[in-house]
Amino acid sequence: MGILDGIVKPSDVKNLNIKQMETLAEELRGEILGTIEKNGGHLASNLGIVETTIALYNAFDFDKDKLIFDVGHQCYAHKILSGRKEEFHSIRTNGGLSGFPDREESAFDAFTVGHAGTSIAAGIGYCAARDKNNEDYFVINVVGDGSIANGLNLEALVSSNVKPKNYIVILNDNGMSISKNKNGFYQFVSKGTTKRGYIRSKRALRKIFGNSFITKGLAGVRNFIKRILNKPSQTNYFENHGFKYVGLVDGNNIKELSAILKRVKVVAREKAILLHIKTTKGKGYKDAEEHADVYHGVGKSLKCESGNFSVALGGKLNELIEKDPKITAITAAMKDGTGLSIVEENHPQNFVDVGIAEEYAVNLAAGMAAGGLKPVVAVYSTFMQRAYDQIIHDVCLQNLPVVLCLDRAGLVGMDGKTHQGVFDLSYLCHIPNLSVFAPNTVEELGNILEYAFKLNSPVAIRYPKNAMLTDNICAPIEDEPWQRVKSGDKITLLAVGPNMLKTALTCSEKCEGVGVISVRRIKPLCEKTLKAIKDTVVITLEENSVIGGFGSYVCAYYQNNGFNTKVKTLGVKDGFVSHGTVDKQLKENGLTEEELFSVIEKLKVSVENE
Amino acid sequence: MGILDGIVKPSDVKNLNIKQMETLAEELRGEILGTIEKNGGHLASNLGIVETTIALYNAFDFDKDKLIFDVGHQCYAHKILSGRKEEFHSIRTNGGLSGFPDREESAFDAFTVGHAGTSIAAGIGYCAARDKNNEDYFVINVVGDGSIANGLNLEALVSSNVKPKNYIVILNDNGMSISKNKNGFYQFVSKGTTKRGYIRSKRALRKIFGNSFITKGLAGVRNFIKRILNKPSQTNYFENHGFKYVGLVDGNNIKELSAILKRVKVVAREKAILLHIKTTKGKGYKDAEEHADVYHGVGKSLKCESGNFSVALGGKLNELIEKDPKITAITAAMKDGTGLSIVEENHPQNFVDVGIAEEYAVNLAAGMAAGGLKPVVAVYSTFMQRAYDQIIHDVCLQNLPVVLCLDRAGLVGMDGKTHQGVFDLSYLCHIPNLSVFAPNTVEELGNILEYAFKLNSPVAIRYPKNAMLTDNICAPIEDEPWQRVKSGDKITLLAVGPNMLKTALTCSEKCEGVGVISVRRIKPLCEKTLKAIKDTVVITLEENSVIGGFGSYVCAYYQNNGFNTKVKTLGVKDGFVSHGTVDKQLKENGLTEEELFSVIEKLKVSVENE
Repeated sequence: MGILDGIVKPSDVKNLNIKQMETLAEELRGEILGTIEKNGGHLASNLGIVETTIALYNAFDFDKDKLIFDVGHQCYAHKILSGRKEEFHSIRTNGGLSGFPDREESAFDAFTVGHAGTSIAAGIGYCAARDKNNEDYFVINVVGDGSIANGLNLEALVSSNVKPKNYIVILNDNGMSISKNKNGFYQFVSKGTTKRGYIRSKRALRKIFGNSFITKGLAGVRNFIKRILNKPSQTNYFENHGFKYVGLVDGNNIKELSAILKRVKVVAREKAILLHIKTTKGKGYKDAEEHADVYHGVGKSLKCESGNFSVALGGKLNELIEKDPKITAITAAMKDGTGLSIVEENHPQNFVDVGIAEEYAVNLAAGMAAGGLKPVVAVYSTFMQRAYDQIIHDVCLQNLPVVLCLDRAGLVGMDGKTHQGVFDLSYLCHIPNLSVFAPNTVEELGNILEYAFKLNSPVAIRYPKNAMLTDNICAPIEDEPWQRVKSGDKITLLAVGPNMLKTALTCSEKCEGVGVISVRRIKPLCEKTLKAIKDTVVITLEENSVIGGFGSYVCAYYQNNGFNTKVKTLGVKDGFVSHGTVDKQLKENGLTEEELFSVIEKLKVSVENE
Repeated sequence: MGILDGIVKPSDVKNLNIKQMETLAEELRGEILGTIEKNGGHLASNLGIVETTIALYNAFDFDKDKLIFDVGHQCYAHKILSGRKEEFHSIRTNGGLSGFPDREESAFDAFTVGHAGTSIAAGIGYCAARDKNNEDYFVINVVGDGSIANGLNLEALVSSNVKPKNYIVILNDNGMSISKNKNGFYQFVSKGTTKRGYIRSKRALRKIFGNSFITKGLAGVRNFIKRILNKPSQTNYFENHGFKYVGLVDGNNIKELSAILKRVKVVAREKAILLHIKTTKGKGYKDAEEHADVYHGVGKSLKCESGNFSVALGGKLNELIEKDPKITAITAAMKDGTGLSIVEENHPQNFVDVGIAEEYAVNLAAGMAAGGLKPVVAVYSTFMQRAYDQIIHDVCLQNLPVVLCLDRAGLVGMDGKTHQGVFDLSYLCHIPNLSVFAPNTVEELGNILEYAFKLNSPVAIRYPKNAMLTDNICAPIEDEPWQRVKSGDKITLLAVGPNMLKTALTCSEKCEGVGVISVRRIKPLCEKTLKAIKDTVVITLEENSVIGGFGSYVCAYYQNNGFNTKVKTLGVKDGFVSHGTVDKQLKENGLTEEELFSVIEKLKVSVENE
């Protein structure tokens, strides 16, 4: 029987000795590795943080202390230790645990996350509430080196030069952000020792550990001190923003970390602590350790898929840059996910990875476009939410030719509610000067991209991970933004995106008089087609909120133009969609073939009754 | 004849000597002061930057060099010097100059701005384009100490530890952000001299000025050097992010600044420069110098208005906090504009001004709510765009009881297109768990606020500056979210916000059978009322984009519920609305009584013809 079997409640970790905790780390690592290989998930980050998580559970009391992760892609060990061991095998499956911390799932998940940069603000907010309410608990953030430099975390860091007491930020430095970026902040944080830094950290450490503590001769701590004296000191940056800086500590060494955390707890009573730890991303899994960026998030098969939109984007951009070197590809710490790695390889001068900084990515693109380049910003739909104001204020208001590529649009499956790309049509369509497209095939994505550069005005292209495999439905986008792919005189299905088009096509085969139109351009609407189908009943299908998206846009068009066309809008219901298979998520939102069939049947009856 | 009369084109400033530039400064100041007193605008910031602007025009060649302001509320001297002297009297009037830099207005406005934090990203983008296109020009940012700490600028600052050559960021330190905040970044930047800093700046200056330059005996420069040796050095922060730091220079001293800028131009050929200047906000206008935060933006009368929504919010919160100390008011550098100053005065423990950091404000509120407080975040509608992702991901996804107050919603008049609050209904209504309200009277705002705290879920309240003066239309919001204020059996006007309600009421008086409903809750829709009026023709009126807002929400409701109700949606057209009077902006968007009357008449005819 392993140590893990004895962990029934979180506080059981408090009773373990170092040796037992080390054993527990191995057990947890095995558990995580086995499960991620089956269910997919963030392999490298979850493996790297195992020892730190155990040490935190050993040092703190999470029945009251609050543990807040940044991004949350490193929460697996935490989930297992906080009473979810039995359900852990179900992570990222239908009805199973979420791959991210979730307040709805457990009281031990103090803050629901998925996007980067939110933890320090949340941590400070928690401390404010605690102190106001005269409560007594520690607030602990775990932040990776990629997200510490996100603008939201930076705003929180600089917000005041006094930080709350009983507040600990653990900066988990694994030497890379999601994909390795050349961010100056990180290099700043990692700068080499200066003489002044040396003296300061020595003094700071004395103060924390006390002479007595050092003279007690804890070998691990002495080693740590030895090491830090040869390591960077960042007293300026974090100390100037109200933290006592402690570091650099080996976050994979339970013995050292446990000793440090116990002292940190004492010192944190007087002043907020920034504890800088170093961990090995992917620790314990050789492939993941060596290629931590590739293994950041892995699909079930641990293999890269091909023939999808992301791959197509990279390939097409690569080809277009060869003809026009003004084209510049920008991403925010997701060059692999968006398919841009190939651009970086072949055209490093035409590629920028800004780190986890979507606002900056879009604003930078606006500056480049104003200066005469042709920038393309590719990030996931859910992360582009961060840049909503920059799209309005910096790109569209100036009518600048920036192309925004929103990957993972629509329902995303296992990443769940924090990552759904189901708001983009609603947050984009009302922005003046912006054209919005949604390709169905990889060929269409290429055509739209070429067309976008011709338009010389802002363009957004949104698409899910997987394209339709057929590409025989691909009329030139400029001639026919909405392409009729099946005729029908009673009902017209206006389908947005490959999933909806596929559903519309298969369903329409079974119904008489039902036509299908592939809507490749969401804005501006294709008025010619809308007029041509005005005497049929129109059903819109979109993998986007039913509110404010394509469907309501069509409804308002008909009403404002005095047509009596009946419209039914199908889309994602007004709620957050939990993780699960895309099929399950489509079903929950009434977007399957069966549901569509039943809507069509009902409409036919109601039309006939009129 | 003054010096200003001789400035016909920007390069004319290059021919002036120091004395002439000093005279020009006085002339410009007179011009700006006189015009702002008539037209309104940002008094203190525009007065403070006059000498710096002249020195920049003297040192650089803006026929090719790019001058990019942050926020842009300090561009008046620039506008006058760049060929817009004759039109300057028209600033912030119908058809006149914009109060902010605008690429559409002049080629000398390199980047359109209005929101904070966008300049460094734009500057770096411009440099990237320039270098790619083998062009040769300087890019100069002018950034205030308030906006330098905005997350977007911070992302840009830390984006790389190498910054472009021929790139100069002028950090204009006037000792305050819009309303004085206790931001740690600023205190960090202003830290006192350390011995090491002393040596470093001495060395850095030597390198810039060269021994020969110093021995030439330019008294001004020597004075400057003397001064900086007794002043802070921030070599760490900016130098670690790829800048050569130069400062602190008196930005109101043309002689000194001109000499520095000429050398800076030379050094910038090798490395990006961060030039830290100190200016006196409101210089030359005694009241403005002493109360620079109050005079940051002034209405035409230079007096504070009363009886408006902002005042009402402050008063109501003040009252509610007395009963419930868990209520915490948060703003982002606009405590005066949002009416929260009174809360700070009376309940400093229940008030937080985070500086220009809307993302952080909303995320902090989410953390506070998770910890058990009742936070209220009040910022302008246009600035809340910055926090779109935080509203989704941090507040609504966790269904946290955060109240968002969006002041200056709708058409804002003279601040123009960068500041219009006409997207909020479109960017809020599709967010799950969020209730959205729009009061018409100050009493309604109070009622909605009280109701919001009872809901215990996320609430957004949007309102313009001015409330309706009557408050006899104020049924309890929980009983009757949509209040019928006039009956009518043919047409129903669904009016959102005080301007629209006023228009609907006056217009309906002249038309038979036209009813009016005051829509105080936008989301969820009031289905009871929608059903009750389904047999009338419905006209929606909103000071928000016609796309994705209230109107299209109503259209989709009727269509999806199988009603044949005719709907006409009136709102802000799909375009950016330039500065001018609100009346003019309403007229341009077809939102006046006359336009409404004509829409009603046409609808009556079309209904009768059926």
